[in-house]
Amino acid sequence: MRWSNILIPTLKEDPADTETTGHKLMIRAGLIRKLASGIYSYLPLGFRALKKAEAIVREEMDKVDAQELLLPALQPVELWHKSGRYNDLGEDMIKFIDRHKKEMVLGPTHEEVITELVRNEVHSYKQLPLILYQIQTKFRDELRPRFGVIRSREFIMKDAYSFDRDVESLQISYKKMFDTYCRIFDRCGLKYVIVEADPGIMGGDVSHEFMVLAESGEDMIVKCSGCLWASSLDKAECADKQTNKKNDKESLLPLKEIDTPNIKTIEKLSKLLNVESKGMLKTIIYRSEDGFVAALVRGDFQINELKLSRAIGSLHLKLATDKEIEDLTGAPLGFSGPVGLKNAKIIADFSVRDMRNFIAGANKTDRHLINVNITRDFSVDTFSDIRFITESDTCPKCKASITLKHAIEVGHVFKLGIKYSNRLGAVFLDADGKTKPMVMGCYGIGINRIIAAIIEQSNDKEGIVWPMSLAPVLVYTIVLDPKDKISMKFASGLDDRLRDNKLDSLLDDRQISAGIKFKDADLIGAPIRITVNKDALKKGRVEIKQRRERVSKIVSKDRIFSLILKSCTST
Amino acid sequence: MRWSNILIPTLKEDPADTETTGHKLMIRAGLIRKLASGIYSYLPLGFRALKKAEAIVREEMDKVDAQELLLPALQPVELWHKSGRYNDLGEDMIKFIDRHKKEMVLGPTHEEVITELVRNEVHSYKQLPLILYQIQTKFRDELRPRFGVIRSREFIMKDAYSFDRDVESLQISYKKMFDTYCRIFDRCGLKYVIVEADPGIMGGDVSHEFMVLAESGEDMIVKCSGCLWASSLDKAECADKQTNKKNDKESLLPLKEIDTPNIKTIEKLSKLLNVESKGMLKTIIYRSEDGFVAALVRGDFQINELKLSRAIGSLHLKLATDKEIEDLTGAPLGFSGPVGLKNAKIIADFSVRDMRNFIAGANKTDRHLINVNITRDFSVDTFSDIRFITESDTCPKCKASITLKHAIEVGHVFKLGIKYSNRLGAVFLDADGKTKPMVMGCYGIGINRIIAAIIEQSNDKEGIVWPMSLAPVLVYTIVLDPKDKISMKFASGLDDRLRDNKLDSLLDDRQISAGIKFKDADLIGAPIRITVNKDALKKGRVEIKQRRERVSKIVSKDRIFSLILKSCTST
Repeated sequence: MRWSNILIPTLKEDPADTETTGHKLMIRAGLIRKLASGIYSYLPLGFRALKKAEAIVREEMDKVDAQELLLPALQPVELWHKSGRYNDLGEDMIKFIDRHKKEMVLGPTHEEVITELVRNEVHSYKQLPLILYQIQTKFRDELRPRFGVIRSREFIMKDAYSFDRDVESLQISYKKMFDTYCRIFDRCGLKYVIVEADPGIMGGDVSHEFMVLAESGEDMIVKCSGCLWASSLDKAECADKQTNKKNDKESLLPLKEIDTPNIKTIEKLSKLLNVESKGMLKTIIYRSEDGFVAALVRGDFQINELKLSRAIGSLHLKLATDKEIEDLTGAPLGFSGPVGLKNAKIIADFSVRDMRNFIAGANKTDRHLINVNITRDFSVDTFSDIRFITESDTCPKCKASITLKHAIEVGHVFKLGIKYSNRLGAVFLDADGKTKPMVMGCYGIGINRIIAAIIEQSNDKEGIVWPMSLAPVLVYTIVLDPKDKISMKFASGLDDRLRDNKLDSLLDDRQISAGIKFKDADLIGAPIRITVNKDALKKGRVEIKQRRERVSKIVSKDRIFSLILKSCTST
Repeated sequence: MRWSNILIPTLKEDPADTETTGHKLMIRAGLIRKLASGIYSYLPLGFRALKKAEAIVREEMDKVDAQELLLPALQPVELWHKSGRYNDLGEDMIKFIDRHKKEMVLGPTHEEVITELVRNEVHSYKQLPLILYQIQTKFRDELRPRFGVIRSREFIMKDAYSFDRDVESLQISYKKMFDTYCRIFDRCGLKYVIVEADPGIMGGDVSHEFMVLAESGEDMIVKCSGCLWASSLDKAECADKQTNKKNDKESLLPLKEIDTPNIKTIEKLSKLLNVESKGMLKTIIYRSEDGFVAALVRGDFQINELKLSRAIGSLHLKLATDKEIEDLTGAPLGFSGPVGLKNAKIIADFSVRDMRNFIAGANKTDRHLINVNITRDFSVDTFSDIRFITESDTCPKCKASITLKHAIEVGHVFKLGIKYSNRLGAVFLDADGKTKPMVMGCYGIGINRIIAAIIEQSNDKEGIVWPMSLAPVLVYTIVLDPKDKISMKFASGLDDRLRDNKLDSLLDDRQISAGIKFKDADLIGAPIRITVNKDALKKGRVEIKQRRERVSKIVSKDRIFSLILKSCTST
């Protein structure tokens, strides 16, 4: 392929409105262009990288006999009402009214549609287990699209769904997909961590995320320094379930109310009283389906609403409004506390259990209490793990130190169980003659994110450093003087031969300075660069350079093809 | 691939709500399933056929250095206002309001988006010519989705766009695409006709449709029996531009008004007066941007509104309402005529020119005129070709007889010219230092329609008869007794070997009657069927049968693989 026939609009400068290295490089190397907020076009090079990622995904899925199909993006809203997820998706789900006045949905995911399909077509245990997948465009109206194609409103997902007779069989399908995901991401050259994760609105009990470590990642994961434990920040269990007996000895001081005019945050209170935030109680009022909940956590910690929702079994937990707080506590936001609080369930994080003589809101305007103590001053209905882990915590498995890292989620696998098959009626007749709901799993990979993540991980100050497996161009040939017929004949011959061997080749035949060509070669990041110099070629020599190495080699022109082949297969 | 691992829900009976043979077979063979009106899921076999069609399209496009990319389905509405097509698409275009209250469009086609992209990235004649394409899902909210995936609301299109310096260069790109389309449809095994077509809302002057002849086709084409001329019915020029002088001799009879109580149609009038419809004038009142238009055509012909719109240069021609007709003519619908008609432009089809002493509406309730004659009784503002051709016409090129045929449109190529580049500002600096608009072409193929059309053309009463190039299964192996280990071992070995050689193989390992397996094999329509019979296998024999042939052959099991290879490459 010659540069003159293809659209590769490289940019010298970093474009505006780009946040991460990967996003900048994808624009600069001419892989993508923004059409509107969170909506991108893939230009020829970007498209090729996408196709390579897709091909790897497809090959590995097919190896384990997963069946590819294609489901519609347009979905009838009724399925979402049946599954009960219409409200869960909220404004993220794009809806429209069709010309016959029916509400339709643009699929953000396909659990509903696949379950409906399988419900109609699969009726016997003989047809199970079944793994179906598709590589298809999804739509989500993200509140804040960002980081280029990482969080966009239209993206390509490989979504797979497994259907099994029972939980044991699901475990086999889940393991199959889990291992397949490892092979896929390994082949893509990604450095990733597998973490336990919260299933969120997908439902089910068990899920794992495949996280690519990257400074720019918008997700946070927790890793143990001592053992293999890793978790998403949302899901990470805190190690302080056991009480620390040593605090038992501290004597309880008398409860006292103090003046804290306009001091509504832990930070300000800490400054005013010169007390560390861990000596204070944070009280947050929520509203659940069953009434108000006061969630208590140590002042230096943050409440994890996912954990809190699970702890109290609430599906639609919301922060109480300012008005609700005033009505409930008798004081405005910022002065809530558990002492004397009525008509609210009190749930405290384990971190609160060992606190003695602490500071809390007094439920009066501009007033706090000091020397508050559990049992003596108020009762806790339930203790639970309802906070985010921090680097001051230890590993819940082995007590070693832990670190928090930014990451990009590229894959997510879920054991869904019977949530969808129950709600949508996907049942089968088992060998024992009984009708049972199918046991489901679902498995997603963000195809665009594979590309974005590899660029985020694999680059230098000159540009992208593609792994062989995903590189849109494997061999980038620079002809220093495209007017020299001998140079062009040699380069074209090489280009043809590479293409005949299904090796992606780009011949830079532009009549511009060599400097620009070398810069573009590095920016585009092809693993192998060939330079054809008129004078060297006369002596039978050309230059070859690996993108990952600093130095180039001068080699015989007759050996160049076999050298390229060797490089392509060895990396 | 074993049947037990894949989802192929074949049906014995024709499903309800299916209109054509192809639609019925696609459902019965388990290729597709309907999710909602005009919305289909592709099951594994249907998906494989789609992928094969896509691969052929991609290979042929790549051969001529067209560049594949991927544009978003979500499009900002502003581009459609700029191009002026927002209203043209009307309710066919799906629109929604996003969470930030902006109107968005679900792309029914991508002229706007690609022109915007190229406008931003291409600035010099050195970057031209350029052919860009994608294979992508389009959305159109069809008023009447039908014929399965032929007219659906979500479909896969290969859409290509060419950008050239001038009209001469566009001609080269157009020819390149035209020839590529021929190769694509040839490889797909389709029997097709290329016709001149009306560009419709795409704009431009020249367009050709690739039409697959099929009884169930919703489009009509016209073919000459004598020369190569073929046209879409919409576009087909009528041969009667020249007057037929012989009628000149007929003497003009006196104009007379007659009573025709409640006779509002040509048909009823013909019966009442015992006069052939070709002796009557049909007068249809339209409303254009410039006022009313009375369109006249011979009673046995139909007005072609596309031709009429072009003839009078109207973009938004509409039938006049009953009220408008009464106000204009003084009589209700059914009694309009040109005599004495005021405040309307009178445009007559060439077929009217030679009429003598004909019958027309009197512009009075329940009254018609007989012995009407042009010039003596009324004046025509313009004569033009404004009707549909019929089989009573002759070829406009060679005067031979013509036939009308039903067909399915699978491809359409357009010379767009500068319509979009002008409106969206896609200009370039030419070698002469002048800024010029790019000259565009666009080229579409309905990928789903390739599949639907081949099935419509290639089937028998047992099921689909796939061509090798698109068959989702090439070799269908029936194991008569799957409990026999020797049979299964042989069949699995063959299946593995075929798959290793990238030949799609399906092993029917079901524990059901042989009859069902043979029926499914014919229904699914794999080009080659292998039958493994336990007793024959012991003697070293298996059966091979071509789907297209009636008889099977018994051959040595050791020769089976080479025989299959030979069949696959020779067909």
